[in-house]
Amino acid sequence: MADDPLAAVDRHLAANRAQGLQGLREFLSIPSVSAVSDHRADVQQAAAFLADRLRAAGLDEVAVLPTPGHPVVYGQWLHAPGRPTALVYGHYDVQPADPVESWTTPPFLPAERGGRLFARGAADDKGQVWMHILAAEALLRTAGRLPLNLKFLIEGEEEVGSTHLKAFVAEHREQLAADVVVISDSSLYAPGLPAIVYGLRGLCALELTVRGPARDLHSGEYGGAVQNPLHALAELVAGLHDREGRIAVEGFYDDARPLSAAERAAVARLPFDEDAYRRDLAVPATFGEAGYTTPERCTGRPTVEVNGMWGGFLGEGSKTVIPAAAHAKLTCRLVPDQDPERILDLVARHLERHCPPGVRVEVALRGGSPATVAPLDSEYVRAAARALRGAFGAEPVYTRMGGSIGVVPAFTQELRAPVVLMGFGLADDHIHAPDESFDLGNYDRGMRALAAYWHGLGAGSGP
Amino acid sequence: MADDPLAAVDRHLAANRAQGLQGLREFLSIPSVSAVSDHRADVQQAAAFLADRLRAAGLDEVAVLPTPGHPVVYGQWLHAPGRPTALVYGHYDVQPADPVESWTTPPFLPAERGGRLFARGAADDKGQVWMHILAAEALLRTAGRLPLNLKFLIEGEEEVGSTHLKAFVAEHREQLAADVVVISDSSLYAPGLPAIVYGLRGLCALELTVRGPARDLHSGEYGGAVQNPLHALAELVAGLHDREGRIAVEGFYDDARPLSAAERAAVARLPFDEDAYRRDLAVPATFGEAGYTTPERCTGRPTVEVNGMWGGFLGEGSKTVIPAAAHAKLTCRLVPDQDPERILDLVARHLERHCPPGVRVEVALRGGSPATVAPLDSEYVRAAARALRGAFGAEPVYTRMGGSIGVVPAFTQELRAPVVLMGFGLADDHIHAPDESFDLGNYDRGMRALAAYWHGLGAGSGP
Repeated sequence: MADDPLAAVDRHLAANRAQGLQGLREFLSIPSVSAVSDHRADVQQAAAFLADRLRAAGLDEVAVLPTPGHPVVYGQWLHAPGRPTALVYGHYDVQPADPVESWTTPPFLPAERGGRLFARGAADDKGQVWMHILAAEALLRTAGRLPLNLKFLIEGEEEVGSTHLKAFVAEHREQLAADVVVISDSSLYAPGLPAIVYGLRGLCALELTVRGPARDLHSGEYGGAVQNPLHALAELVAGLHDREGRIAVEGFYDDARPLSAAERAAVARLPFDEDAYRRDLAVPATFGEAGYTTPERCTGRPTVEVNGMWGGFLGEGSKTVIPAAAHAKLTCRLVPDQDPERILDLVARHLERHCPPGVRVEVALRGGSPATVAPLDSEYVRAAARALRGAFGAEPVYTRMGGSIGVVPAFTQELRAPVVLMGFGLADDHIHAPDESFDLGNYDRGMRALAAYWHGLGAGSGP
Repeated sequence: MADDPLAAVDRHLAANRAQGLQGLREFLSIPSVSAVSDHRADVQQAAAFLADRLRAAGLDEVAVLPTPGHPVVYGQWLHAPGRPTALVYGHYDVQPADPVESWTTPPFLPAERGGRLFARGAADDKGQVWMHILAAEALLRTAGRLPLNLKFLIEGEEEVGSTHLKAFVAEHREQLAADVVVISDSSLYAPGLPAIVYGLRGLCALELTVRGPARDLHSGEYGGAVQNPLHALAELVAGLHDREGRIAVEGFYDDARPLSAAERAAVARLPFDEDAYRRDLAVPATFGEAGYTTPERCTGRPTVEVNGMWGGFLGEGSKTVIPAAAHAKLTCRLVPDQDPERILDLVARHLERHCPPGVRVEVALRGGSPATVAPLDSEYVRAAARALRGAFGAEPVYTRMGGSIGVVPAFTQELRAPVVLMGFGLADDHIHAPDESFDLGNYDRGMRALAAYWHGLGAGSGP
């Protein structure tokens, strides 16, 4: 080649930066909240917008494919025979923006401040999906072709557990076949320190309802004589852990794969400042399972967590009521070898067995997906490390992530492809929270890393 | 006298029944919901309507007196020198009607069905205030005078805690001076079985906030490494009681006046069907403080009760969040000798002392009022018993009520007058709930009882 193809990509990205960001702002302004049925049309609109952008970038066979839930957006470029095929997975749906009043600027009105773009989905995951599109487009525009075969699979239900994508992947096994699945839905380990994520926790969910009296009761007339469902719910939730942060559900840890001595040593070598972590969160102390460090607790150990809890009178002032029912939403994060169905069953049976007197417990299971770990000794991982090193000027670290990406087990099981997670967020992006944002320096560096990765995989020694 | 004055009252009430009920329907059709600022004009209108009716009944010095909140309606008839003075207290404000769609007929369009008048406020307390006016009017029209001195103090803020009435009573101590305070804002013990309520529980309130991380966190990224404020709140709420329903707050029972053996025996003699009670509430079992019966638990023993609790994601679907804070609204029902300020302090200190690691506890005290008990061996109580026996043909029972009437302690402290509660509702009047109604048989009998009570107090041996 007459010119370094990556230098041409850099120039293209720089020349088109404002235009690219403008497109991302438009993408982010669509409130594609998958959890809320009122946003159904917005989710559809985001899918259509994304498909248009994939077509404009030069991908083929772009389609918005229906599922029983929100649609999947697909596109491909398969004109590199003999070269590897990578499948890019991401999601265009976002978390709810509540509490909306806590945002500095409206969640669906993207705003740039201090080198960051603030909007729901900026980091998780619209911004990172957008980077993949622009990186591929830059290669296509500058070299006229991609150095490898590329498929895009961008779903609309990641934030609600990828309910239908697992079946979709199984049904479209041939269409989606790839040598490697690449996902950018994670973070650098720290500013300037890229990471390759080789493990994800699994996730399963249930809803707990405690039912007491048939109707809300006056706490003067009945107070003291009937079990208050709020008290019973509190007792059940409090009983999920012991005082030292261990999960008290019988059998919960039975199948959990222990952290190996080598992994614990590797985690201990990663830069981690407990005090800075505590100060960033403004908590008086960190807290978790006795016997583990903070980084171990939030990546390599399972959890049972209440994500929402409510009942009775929540308004201004007071209403002296004993409510008929109380509610909690629970999720468990899982480590390798824990089966989501078995864990849900254990938690449900624990709750039923410990139901306090005078009330009834109802448990609704919401399904889940297991944890995954990937081998580190493949060319796909080595090429990713080279690309990250080139773009960020630092050797990437290898980590497990505390979060979950519901469909990853389907990729490993159905496509039998290794999954490489190279993400460009930062720990303080406030994903799932008010004032979500994405660092635009990492946005720029990340696109260069992605283009370099495709280039490396296409030109490289191959697997 | 040429005629039995009570027979004349009976004839007058019978002859004017339709007209009296029509007036009550008009009173009930004014939506004087004190809690909702949109109803401010309605509350004013109800006060004016009530004042007009007191004037029409023949009372003097009738006035709508301002307070910093909703006004108080006052009226008097003081032309019986040497006779006792009774102060009638009641309220013209009502609870909100939500959920309005659960009413068979609209809450502010009074409807008669099966011998009951259905409307918000029919029993609590407009209907019972109305009975007092018509009973006094019947005595004035038939005898030309009342057998004693009578004052009316009808407030507009009972359903919002009588916020301003306590100060009003203190400031108008001379104007309100009375030998006895009579309140009809309670119920018969059972159909056909009148009751004199000689005790009320006190009430105090606080709000609890558990603060964890400075912002909502992703439960994948942080789950397991920080204390979840919802878990901490659950632990705190669960720690308020032991497994046998006793309050675990250190010192909580220290000052609580024990139920005497005589009172426990009296409670045990009252008709009470535990099984019917349980079936009505549709609870698997009643539950409360070990060592006490259901009627004792909900009238003679104190409580700590959560009336509302919330935090995290409460919407449809799931959001894997560790919230920054979790909240609970608590009230305590108090028995005699418990000081509301001291109890709030004990509960607050208990919560602070038991704050789980990794979070902070904030407690906001909302004040309260103590329990009251009245001596049963006074002429005011004996005369009430005679009047009830005459009107209902059954010996009244003496009970304590589990609820609280916020201003009663001000009557005992500021006016130093005993308080006699003789109410004419029934347990199934659905007060504070949809389809509130008032039994019109008890309405008729109750007015005769009130006229007989005034007659007895005026003619009686006196205190």
